[in-house]
Amino acid sequence: MSSEEGILQFNRGVPATETLPVRGAGDALSAALEKDGQRLLAYGDSRGYLPLRETLAADCDGVSSDEVLLGNGSLQLLDMIASLYLGEGKVVAVEEPTYDRAITIFKRAGTKVVGVELESDGVKTEKLREVFSELQPELFYTIPDFQNPTGTTTSREKRERVAALLDRYGVTAVEDSPYRRLRYRGEPEPELRSLNQERVLQISSFSKLVGPGVRVGWLVGDSVTIDELSAYAEDTYITPVALGQGIVHEFMVNGWLEENVEKLKSLYRPRLEATLENLEKYLPEAEWVEAKGGFFVGVWLPDRELGRRFYEEAGSRGLVLTSPAGFFPDNGGENFLRLPFPALTPPEIESGIKRIAEVWNDL
Amino acid sequence: MSSEEGILQFNRGVPATETLPVRGAGDALSAALEKDGQRLLAYGDSRGYLPLRETLAADCDGVSSDEVLLGNGSLQLLDMIASLYLGEGKVVAVEEPTYDRAITIFKRAGTKVVGVELESDGVKTEKLREVFSELQPELFYTIPDFQNPTGTTTSREKRERVAALLDRYGVTAVEDSPYRRLRYRGEPEPELRSLNQERVLQISSFSKLVGPGVRVGWLVGDSVTIDELSAYAEDTYITPVALGQGIVHEFMVNGWLEENVEKLKSLYRPRLEATLENLEKYLPEAEWVEAKGGFFVGVWLPDRELGRRFYEEAGSRGLVLTSPAGFFPDNGGENFLRLPFPALTPPEIESGIKRIAEVWNDL
Repeated sequence: MSSEEGILQFNRGVPATETLPVRGAGDALSAALEKDGQRLLAYGDSRGYLPLRETLAADCDGVSSDEVLLGNGSLQLLDMIASLYLGEGKVVAVEEPTYDRAITIFKRAGTKVVGVELESDGVKTEKLREVFSELQPELFYTIPDFQNPTGTTTSREKRERVAALLDRYGVTAVEDSPYRRLRYRGEPEPELRSLNQERVLQISSFSKLVGPGVRVGWLVGDSVTIDELSAYAEDTYITPVALGQGIVHEFMVNGWLEENVEKLKSLYRPRLEATLENLEKYLPEAEWVEAKGGFFVGVWLPDRELGRRFYEEAGSRGLVLTSPAGFFPDNGGENFLRLPFPALTPPEIESGIKRIAEVWNDL
Repeated sequence: MSSEEGILQFNRGVPATETLPVRGAGDALSAALEKDGQRLLAYGDSRGYLPLRETLAADCDGVSSDEVLLGNGSLQLLDMIASLYLGEGKVVAVEEPTYDRAITIFKRAGTKVVGVELESDGVKTEKLREVFSELQPELFYTIPDFQNPTGTTTSREKRERVAALLDRYGVTAVEDSPYRRLRYRGEPEPELRSLNQERVLQISSFSKLVGPGVRVGWLVGDSVTIDELSAYAEDTYITPVALGQGIVHEFMVNGWLEENVEKLKSLYRPRLEATLENLEKYLPEAEWVEAKGGFFVGVWLPDRELGRRFYEEAGSRGLVLTSPAGFFPDNGGENFLRLPFPALTPPEIESGIKRIAEVWNDL
């Protein structure tokens, strides 16, 4: 990013490039190949590299390695869930707005996607109950921690309520947790899966903790679902890419993952603070989420009607933003803005929010 | 493998473990990370790592990098082709027998799979013409070089005939070429794609040339198809795993791939010869393919009725073989045997074929 006059990219939901552990990844792969090279370079288990599954299982209370599945990023795991369990005639409930790529995957499988309004403390549970009761969805897809695209964290009370609704209506939840370990303020809420192990599949990845290039996603769930998904995975790609899994395993067993997470938190915390402070300074009439971690702050500009014109004008003034329609199952969200902050410095964030405010005020 | 009395695994269509370039892969990844680490660890292009696409394009006459797509192994590329272009109401023609995982992928997409008899010089083209004419298949899936599971190489004449039939009936072929560079005898036939660039998508991988663990598959085709497939890939896994692609790129630009292929050919050539010689020695009444490369020799035992009993008896005597039904779209092939030779030494191969003959002769 750049001068006031240049192109300002406020759309990249990616780690800061300088955080990618180039040397660490090389060292980790050398160590992994030294120990276990033939296994890492051969066809492997369709569930993924066993030492990493064991390490992940040991990190989760009461989970065995048979309840862990690794894939080439968590999106592909979600795609396999959609291919196996969703499709024509099925319904999936999602928070509205939610992760655009998840909506795409559900719709591509032919599934009806029903959005349930997201409030500042999580999904509107009365509405979720109605949807569960009336539409009997197959799945509820939720991002309880530092949600994409809003930054919202679901409160403990709502997690407990959702966990109970899953039982009451026989719905399975997919808890997507890629940002969970990147908390910059406050104390963690319990994982949804910890509140209902039978009805929650948790997915996550190391894209935000090590680097997207390792393409290591994981799923924790009951062993029957894992068996079905791993058979589907074998028929799709034989075995996921073990090299990245070997790297992540070394990061975990050597303590490098912890170190890296602390480094990321130190870098991203002031970027989140800069985002919130500059929204207060330049756009006090907007509403936004007081995010406590993750990658995003979601902002609602104060006038929905003006939203479309705002996006047109922003584009013509060199301000690159993510178009909001994809985050809403039936489009909409004209006045919604997703601000990803990790890849921008505090001065860049200030300059970006200032420019957003100028465009808005000039409409 | 082991003693006459122990378990004898004659079912593993995989590279010999000792050929996996453990040190080379580590050196290659270090070199790749040194040059281009941030790109390899970030989210990348859904088409795959550009330097490798450029290197592959330069290896193919008249192909640009826009006509190359990389994926996590070639099976996943085939799965994306099936998801995008096949499905309920569509027909795919295949050689019979053919690669079992391809049949699984086509059927899983809801496609009708029609087998066309494979002769010693390739598919029976009169029958292929009838299938094209009567059933208008969407695709013809073919493995012209050292076919899996038979080892058959399609003759030049038949390749030309197939290329002409594709035009005449408006059918696209998928030419699957994972073994092409592993020729141990004779001169190469032209690639099917070189005979009909408009109607052939060629897929292949580095699983047999470097190691399955790199999970690098590639597809060469027209840029419109590549655009459609790469959009589908992005929606499925955002970006394929670049680390393996960085390794393969280093193998190619440093000449290590050539060296490795020569080493593999030296190792596998006597294994193929041992397979053919021992078939002649112990099972002269059977028929088999005089394979000239690849991983497999397909064998037909002389009595179809006895096939099922043969497999039962072989299992109970510790001889592990691949069940033949999966290679045939409508099952069948009771007396067919796929013998993969790369992961067995010549004495192991002799012992295996001798044991097969004993089981057969004892029926």
